[in-house]
Amino acid sequence: MKRTEVVERLLPKVVKASASAEHFAPSNIALCKYWGKRDRELNLPINASLSVSLDYLGSHTRLIPVEAQVDEVWLNGQQLQPGAKFSQKVSEFIDLFRRDQDLYFRVETRNNIPTAAGLASSASGFAALTLALNDALALDLPPEHLSILARMGSGSACRSLFTGFVEWEMGQREDGLDSHGVQLDQAWPGFCIGLVEVDAGEKATDSRSGMQRTVETAHLYQSWPLQAAADLSKLQQAITERDFALLGQTAEQNALSMHATMIASWPPLLYWQPESVAAMQKVWQLREQGLQVYFTMDAGPNLKLLFQHEDRDTLLQHFPNLETVEPFGH
Amino acid sequence: MKRTEVVERLLPKVVKASASAEHFAPSNIALCKYWGKRDRELNLPINASLSVSLDYLGSHTRLIPVEAQVDEVWLNGQQLQPGAKFSQKVSEFIDLFRRDQDLYFRVETRNNIPTAAGLASSASGFAALTLALNDALALDLPPEHLSILARMGSGSACRSLFTGFVEWEMGQREDGLDSHGVQLDQAWPGFCIGLVEVDAGEKATDSRSGMQRTVETAHLYQSWPLQAAADLSKLQQAITERDFALLGQTAEQNALSMHATMIASWPPLLYWQPESVAAMQKVWQLREQGLQVYFTMDAGPNLKLLFQHEDRDTLLQHFPNLETVEPFGH
Repeated sequence: MKRTEVVERLLPKVVKASASAEHFAPSNIALCKYWGKRDRELNLPINASLSVSLDYLGSHTRLIPVEAQVDEVWLNGQQLQPGAKFSQKVSEFIDLFRRDQDLYFRVETRNNIPTAAGLASSASGFAALTLALNDALALDLPPEHLSILARMGSGSACRSLFTGFVEWEMGQREDGLDSHGVQLDQAWPGFCIGLVEVDAGEKATDSRSGMQRTVETAHLYQSWPLQAAADLSKLQQAITERDFALLGQTAEQNALSMHATMIASWPPLLYWQPESVAAMQKVWQLREQGLQVYFTMDAGPNLKLLFQHEDRDTLLQHFPNLETVEPFGH
Repeated sequence: MKRTEVVERLLPKVVKASASAEHFAPSNIALCKYWGKRDRELNLPINASLSVSLDYLGSHTRLIPVEAQVDEVWLNGQQLQPGAKFSQKVSEFIDLFRRDQDLYFRVETRNNIPTAAGLASSASGFAALTLALNDALALDLPPEHLSILARMGSGSACRSLFTGFVEWEMGQREDGLDSHGVQLDQAWPGFCIGLVEVDAGEKATDSRSGMQRTVETAHLYQSWPLQAAADLSKLQQAITERDFALLGQTAEQNALSMHATMIASWPPLLYWQPESVAAMQKVWQLREQGLQVYFTMDAGPNLKLLFQHEDRDTLLQHFPNLETVEPFGH
């Protein structure tokens, strides 16, 4: 099904207004990863996933209506060429909202996290853009619909519409109207995420193509959907019972299993740098010494540590440049 | 089934002689890996595998009958304590042959490859020991039976009984009498293997326990047996047609998939060092530049390069310490 057909089921044909708007959306770190699409046009996933939103780290997006017949896209203070990949993606996304109407914008996005280094800036970017479009065009859509729309811009953006723990229900429908983020009604004060930056450079293979290559060429991928389903229920249990060891173990094994499916692809897809391996070894060593620290990794070389507030100071001694986030305070 | 019961089907109850004997057996590098046991007592595999033997690299084992009521085990010129792991394994293996008789040996094993660094010295060691026992005890067993016996010492030893390309037929029988190495009737002059030594130290987790942990805890392992079967037929085709790209690609994806199942285990099992990742990246870079080079890896941090004689000089420029082996000459 085309994205435009889905949009017809969600949006009015003619929008009521066009004004400036600005919104923030947080980045999110998946504890059970989204890896593999059953529909590449609509970004419908093969498995449900679960994330935690990163509080103040994410994207600010401002929309300003312009007279020109083309969008202007600014990223972190720099205007992009209309042909640039991100610029095109943004413009095609706005096409879904403007349809036949003359509604063009200057889009200013600022990320306070490294772009394209596996820290999911496209998730927060499309979430913030969706929220800003909802305001600028006075659409007044419910959160689930915003999440569905954001998903069509970038899959994991559907989770960045919410704070705290968020489940992306995979859904069954062909139009994807049941595939969106849902905020879990659970807080976990003292829950910490620490960002270990190994390499802030651009990725050699974006996660969209990485995912596709894995699904198409990795035999081991066949076992992934069942593992993801099992991991998701373990994580739900861990969150309900505040069982940190269960959460950490499940998230780390889930992330490593996702990377395992990439490593088993052809050509091999290895997002790790030598420094990633050194950082993993350090985490395992600290855990052997009794520290309750786990990690997760996305389609990039960086590690995201999972730990609890009481261990924050100890961890900062071992990872002095750690940027820590406590999504639920402490 | 007990190993002793299997031995009763293969060996005479009373041996005819006991003399000194000395044998060499080559190390072997699997192009389709043995990973997972369906029977841990007999070392019966979950999947068939295929290897190439390393010509002059391997183990020399000498047996000298001794008067004492205990074996003396020497490894690389040093006598081991009777309680040492390798010493015990060797002695328990000789138990299978001596049974109730007073037949003890001084066992001298010399490996010309690093021990326990993923270069399969236990495979060549048990193969050489089996050959030496066959001589010392004048057993005159056929190669398939020797391969079956060697397998009970160390699984992949059953492939080190032969030179060139060797398939380990997994077999179906409970007693494992159909699970042994078979030499392929195919040579490949100019076929090269290059050993890149990342770390010659002892492994943190031996492959026996690594295998078991993977089978028990990695969801992704479920897809491994089917992949291995598919890879095996691709390799047979590549060898028959001398299709080097097909051989290299299949072997590299097979090795990475085996490592992927370890990475997806719990606790995670990562045999790679940061330098392993750097070496992989180097191989991929050279391949992008048009060089036909692939790698395989066993349960250790080292890479084994696969290439053809015509590219040997170029490769030596990039890997100056490469030890190269040409099992079929050139």
